[in-house]
Amino acid sequence: MPVSPIRIVLSRPTHPGNIGATARAMKNMGLAELTLVAPLKFPHPEATALAADAVDVLERARVCETLAQAVGDCELVIGTSARNRRIGWPALDPRECAARLCGAQGMSALVFGQERTGLINDELDLCQYVVTIPTSPAYPSINLAGAAQIMTYEIFRARQADFDGDARREQPLATAEELQLFYEHLERVLVQTEFLDPQNPRLLMRRLIRLYGRTGLDRNELNILRGILTSIEKGGDRQKN
Amino acid sequence: MPVSPIRIVLSRPTHPGNIGATARAMKNMGLAELTLVAPLKFPHPEATALAADAVDVLERARVCETLAQAVGDCELVIGTSARNRRIGWPALDPRECAARLCGAQGMSALVFGQERTGLINDELDLCQYVVTIPTSPAYPSINLAGAAQIMTYEIFRARQADFDGDARREQPLATAEELQLFYEHLERVLVQTEFLDPQNPRLLMRRLIRLYGRTGLDRNELNILRGILTSIEKGGDRQKN
Repeated sequence: MPVSPIRIVLSRPTHPGNIGATARAMKNMGLAELTLVAPLKFPHPEATALAADAVDVLERARVCETLAQAVGDCELVIGTSARNRRIGWPALDPRECAARLCGAQGMSALVFGQERTGLINDELDLCQYVVTIPTSPAYPSINLAGAAQIMTYEIFRARQADFDGDARREQPLATAEELQLFYEHLERVLVQTEFLDPQNPRLLMRRLIRLYGRTGLDRNELNILRGILTSIEKGGDRQKN
Repeated sequence: MPVSPIRIVLSRPTHPGNIGATARAMKNMGLAELTLVAPLKFPHPEATALAADAVDVLERARVCETLAQAVGDCELVIGTSARNRRIGWPALDPRECAARLCGAQGMSALVFGQERTGLINDELDLCQYVVTIPTSPAYPSINLAGAAQIMTYEIFRARQADFDGDARREQPLATAEELQLFYEHLERVLVQTEFLDPQNPRLLMRRLIRLYGRTGLDRNELNILRGILTSIEKGGDRQKN
């Protein structure tokens, strides 16, 4: 199976040690393509020291002025964030994120923000998804190199699973947007059948979203469920006529 | 739910930065108990700097002379190794390792060896299991702090899964008989809405059974789904009258 290329992008990194440690984590996990956006200090002896036997990743690293340049050729761009800063922004779990990156047909990118601020809104605008690493609420701020280590590990495992074939699906998984449209469709139909009281929809919809969310629906299954909802709506229309 | 205590042990660490970064990774992932065996430099300003807001973990860290002292009170001891050095030594995957640590009744320990050598044979003799983080064969040597980051992340996720599992286990899972009644109900409704052609029902029902079957429906969720089906049937009855 051809392995889809995944680029790791560090945007405005301030500590050269984090650049080197990220390069090492990448090579440990079989990734080679590193892009740095406006690094404060690079090249730097501390980056080289922490890269250890991954200096080749540093030497091949591309340096850009803007994030737009770094991800312009990518079909899928995912940003990392310590918390979901935007209501309604589709947030992924690290394993979902890794599966999507490995499932992309063309070039994809995983973007890490500056150590202190994380990704700012202008940078998030270039991302289709945000991934959040689950942490203790007592101390959610993971070191940049540590976050890169976790995410490259999950990418390696997702690729292994693809190779092993056990997590491989014939159909691609439904996207977060497709799931959202399904939930909205489901809610409309449940209001129509009078199962759901629109005055108090919250808990019921949350339970259904949790149920379908953990199932890992593929696109074919989602289309079947949407088709069922449409057939119920048509029954209601026949009733009105 | 009481959380089983898990101790992180660094044996003979030579770089104080790795001690600090491990303390930070631990606090990120809800772990508090750090033991250091014969650290080369500790306390040290570099450890403190890299611990960031996890200096409390460093301050409470226990320092021992030998690994035997560090794990003497543990019922389960697991050592990390870049490769399985002993034929027949039971080697775990990080997720299996995290599940075992979280499932232990008493104190358990996860032990990391010295940066350059890893755990030596005398140290491995004190471990019941070895865990190996999967890596690219091109560069299998993960930085000590990076390995601690991955393993603490897997421990956090295993605890989350236990917690979610417990919350879900408040409701018993639906029995095979209840599931069968649900599938029959679903089939009747799909024939009524004309989504399912009773002349050729097989493939569609098999797909839906596979979808709901892997979800692990609890009894409450099954009752919600049965209620939705009944509300659709009533809509059809209203249509007939």
